[in-house]
Amino acid sequence: MADIVSMKQKQDTDALVVAQKYDGILRLSLNNPPANALSVALMEALLRNLEEARDDAETRVIIIASLAKVFSAGHDLKELQRHRSEDDRGRAFFDKTMRLCAKLMQTIVALPKPVIAEIDGIATAAGCQLVASCDLAICTDTSGFATPGVNIGLFCSTPMVALSRATHRKQAMEMLLTGETIDASTAKEFGIVNRIVPKEYLRQVVDKYAAVIASKSPLTVKIGKEAFYRQAEMSLEDAYDYTARVMVENMMARDAEEGISAFIDKRKPEWKGE
Amino acid sequence: MADIVSMKQKQDTDALVVAQKYDGILRLSLNNPPANALSVALMEALLRNLEEARDDAETRVIIIASLAKVFSAGHDLKELQRHRSEDDRGRAFFDKTMRLCAKLMQTIVALPKPVIAEIDGIATAAGCQLVASCDLAICTDTSGFATPGVNIGLFCSTPMVALSRATHRKQAMEMLLTGETIDASTAKEFGIVNRIVPKEYLRQVVDKYAAVIASKSPLTVKIGKEAFYRQAEMSLEDAYDYTARVMVENMMARDAEEGISAFIDKRKPEWKGE
Amino acid sequence: MADIVSMKQKQDTDALVVAQKYDGILRLSLNNPPANALSVALMEALLRNLEEARDDAETRVIIIASLAKVFSAGHDLKELQRHRSEDDRGRAFFDKTMRLCAKLMQTIVALPKPVIAEIDGIATAAGCQLVASCDLAICTDTSGFATPGVNIGLFCSTPMVALSRATHRKQAMEMLLTGETIDASTAKEFGIVNRIVPKEYLRQVVDKYAAVIASKSPLTVKIGKEAFYRQAEMSLEDAYDYTARVMVENMMARDAEEGISAFIDKRKPEWKGE
Repeated sequence: MADIVSMKQKQDTDALVVAQKYDGILRLSLNNPPANALSVALMEALLRNLEEARDDAETRVIIIASLAKVFSAGHDLKELQRHRSEDDRGRAFFDKTMRLCAKLMQTIVALPKPVIAEIDGIATAAGCQLVASCDLAICTDTSGFATPGVNIGLFCSTPMVALSRATHRKQAMEMLLTGETIDASTAKEFGIVNRIVPKEYLRQVVDKYAAVIASKSPLTVKIGKEAFYRQAEMSLEDAYDYTARVMVENMMARDAEEGISAFIDKRKPEWKGE
Repeated sequence: MADIVSMKQKQDTDALVVAQKYDGILRLSLNNPPANALSVALMEALLRNLEEARDDAETRVIIIASLAKVFSAGHDLKELQRHRSEDDRGRAFFDKTMRLCAKLMQTIVALPKPVIAEIDGIATAAGCQLVASCDLAICTDTSGFATPGVNIGLFCSTPMVALSRATHRKQAMEMLLTGETIDASTAKEFGIVNRIVPKEYLRQVVDKYAAVIASKSPLTVKIGKEAFYRQAEMSLEDAYDYTARVMVENMMARDAEEGISAFIDKRKPEWKGE
Repeated sequence: MADIVSMKQKQDTDALVVAQKYDGILRLSLNNPPANALSVALMEALLRNLEEARDDAETRVIIIASLAKVFSAGHDLKELQRHRSEDDRGRAFFDKTMRLCAKLMQTIVALPKPVIAEIDGIATAAGCQLVASCDLAICTDTSGFATPGVNIGLFCSTPMVALSRATHRKQAMEMLLTGETIDASTAKEFGIVNRIVPKEYLRQVVDKYAAVIASKSPLTVKIGKEAFYRQAEMSLEDAYDYTARVMVENMMARDAEEGISAFIDKRKPEWKGE
C-alpha cells in the first residue's frame, strides 16, 4: 500500500483522487476541476481508496479534501444527461450512479476509521452529502453548503439522507426546498460542520484533529465508531443492551488494560491495537 | 377551486379560515379571535382547505397565517369542558378532537406541497404543534412559543410529537415540563422556526419564501417532500435503498431532463410538472 | 420515607449519595470525593434512592447534584482494574458494572418524576452520560463536559447512547473521537444542558426549576414524561395514535378537569394527583 501510494504521489497528480500518506493519516484530495463533480469515475476512485484504507494498518484517519476551488458540486450532470440518448433513456446509468453514490456514503459511515471532511469552497448536492456523511467536518469561513437539486428539477433525495441525520428537520427542509446556499457559520449552527477556520490554517487544523485521533488506540476507535452508528438506529433499551456488551468486550482488550493502567500511573499509553 | 376561493374571499371574511390565492400560493389565515383556538370547527375548516389544496394544480405552496393577534393558543378549552356534562363525561368528544388534531398535523406532513407557518404573536400547545408540523416556519421577533398544558393538568402529549421531532430532547423537555414561553430567538436556536423578521416585513418575507418554492417544479417538490419524511423514519441502509430509487424515478421525469438541460445551457427551466 | 431521609441527613453525611427532601424536591448529592467516581457502590446507592423516590408520594422532582468539586468523572477505573486479577480477567465484574450503569440511566428515563442534573465542575464519561440522561440539566459557567474514554483505550460506548440522543451526531462524534472537554457554553449549544448560571446562583436556580415543576399536577407530569420517551422511538403515525390516546386518558383525569376549570375561571388549580 505504501508503495502504491508513493507511486500515486509521483505518477497520479492527474488522478481523480490524489492520495497522500503521513503520520497515520490518509489524505484523499478530490481532483476533478473545476467543480470536483462526483462522476462515476471519481466516486469509484474514492471508494477504492477508502476500501484500501480500511485494510491498511498504517492508516488511522482519513481526510477527504479538495484540490479544486470548490469542495464538490455533486453529481456530474453532463455525464448523466449524455446517457439520456440510450435505449432506456439513461435509467440503467442513473441507477448505477445513485447506487454507487449511496454505497460510497455508507462506506464512509461503515469504515472502522474516522473520516474528516476538509472543506474550502462550495459543497453542494452530493458534495454536501459527502460532508454530511463524514464523521467530522472542518471548513473555511468562506465555504458554503447547499442542496440545490430542487432548482434543476432533481430533488436532493439521497443527499437529504445524510443531511437530515446531521441537522434539525426544519433546517434541512429550508436547504432542500429553497436550494439556497448557507454560509459556514450557519452550517456550524446546523450541525453540518464542527469547526470554522481561516483559509490559511485549514490544513493545519484538520491535520491536528487527524493527529489527535491517530494517537488513540485504533482498536478502540474502531469499536467506538462502529457502535456509534449502530446504536443510533436502536431503541434506548436495545442500544444499552448492545453497548453494554460492547463496553465489556472493549474492557477485555489489551489496549483498554494498558490505557487505564497508563492513566492511573500518569504515563503515556502504548497502543498495540489489540 | 379558483371560483370557490374568490367566493370565499368575498363572502367568508368571517370564516374560521380565510383563504387567499395568488401566484401559486394559497394563504390560509386562521380567523377565530381572540386566541385562534383550534376548535373542532376550525380544525375541520383547515383540514378541508388543505385537502382541496392537495388536488388544486394552481396551488404550489401553502402558508398558514393568522388574522388574530396570536397565531394560535391551541385547543378550545371551553368547547372541551362543555362536553364533560355528557354521559361519557366527554370521552367521545375528546377522542374526536385529539384524532382530528392528529389527522390535521399528519395531513400537513403528508401534503405533497410545502406548508409554511407565518407566526406573529403567541403559538401555544396545539398552536405550537401546528408551527412545528409545518415544513418551514417564519416568525416576528415578538412571537413566543410554549407547550403549557402542564399548567392546566393536560400535558402537551400530542404537541410533543411534532416538537420533539423539530428540536433536541432537553430543549423540548424544558418547554414541556416548565410550560414557560420561549422567545423567537430561542425558538430559532431550538430549530422550531427558520427565520425571525420584524413585524412590518413578515408577510413580505414569507411571500418571498413561498414564491421561491412556487418557482420550482411542483413534481420535484412533491417527490422530495414525500421522500424526506419517509426516509427520516428509516435505517440508514433502508433510507439509501429507498432514496436511490426515488432519485432514478426523479431523473426519468421530464422536469429533471429540462431542469438539468437548462442549467447546462444557462437558461431558465420551464416546468411542466411531469 | 421522610423518617428514613431525616435519618440519612443526620447519620449519612459520609454516605455515597446524600439525600435531602424539601418542598416536594428530593436532592441527591453524589458524595464520593475527589472525583465522584461512579463505583458500583455509588451507582447502587443512587439507584436505590431513585427507586424509593418513585414510590414516595412526597417527592415530585429529583435533583442529582454533587458535593465534590467535580460532578462526576465516570466509572471507578481503579475498581475496574482490580478485578483483572480474577480468573475471568474481570469479565463478570465489568459486565455487572456496565449493566448496572445502563440500568441506572434507563431508570432515570423511566422514572415518572422529572430528574434535573445540577452540574458544577467536570462531568466526564459516565458522568457526562448521567447529565445527558436527566430530563433537564443546569450547570455553572465553569463546568466542562467530555467523553474521554478514547484516551484510555475504552471508547465511551454506553455514554454515547445518552449523548447521541441529546445532541447532533457530528457534535457527539467530535467529543467521542477527540476526547476533549467542551465548555458550558458549547454544551448548551449542543443541547446537553438547558441553562448556564454563575456558581453563586446554581442551587437557587435549580431549586426554582424544581419548584416550578413540583407545583404541577404530579399525575400530569407522570403521564407526560412517560409518553415523551415512548413516542420519541415511534414512527410519526404510531406516535400520534399513541399520544392521542394518552391525551384522552389525561382529559378524563380529575386534575385535567380541575386545571382547565381553574384556567377558565382564572384561579389557581388544586391538584389531587388523580
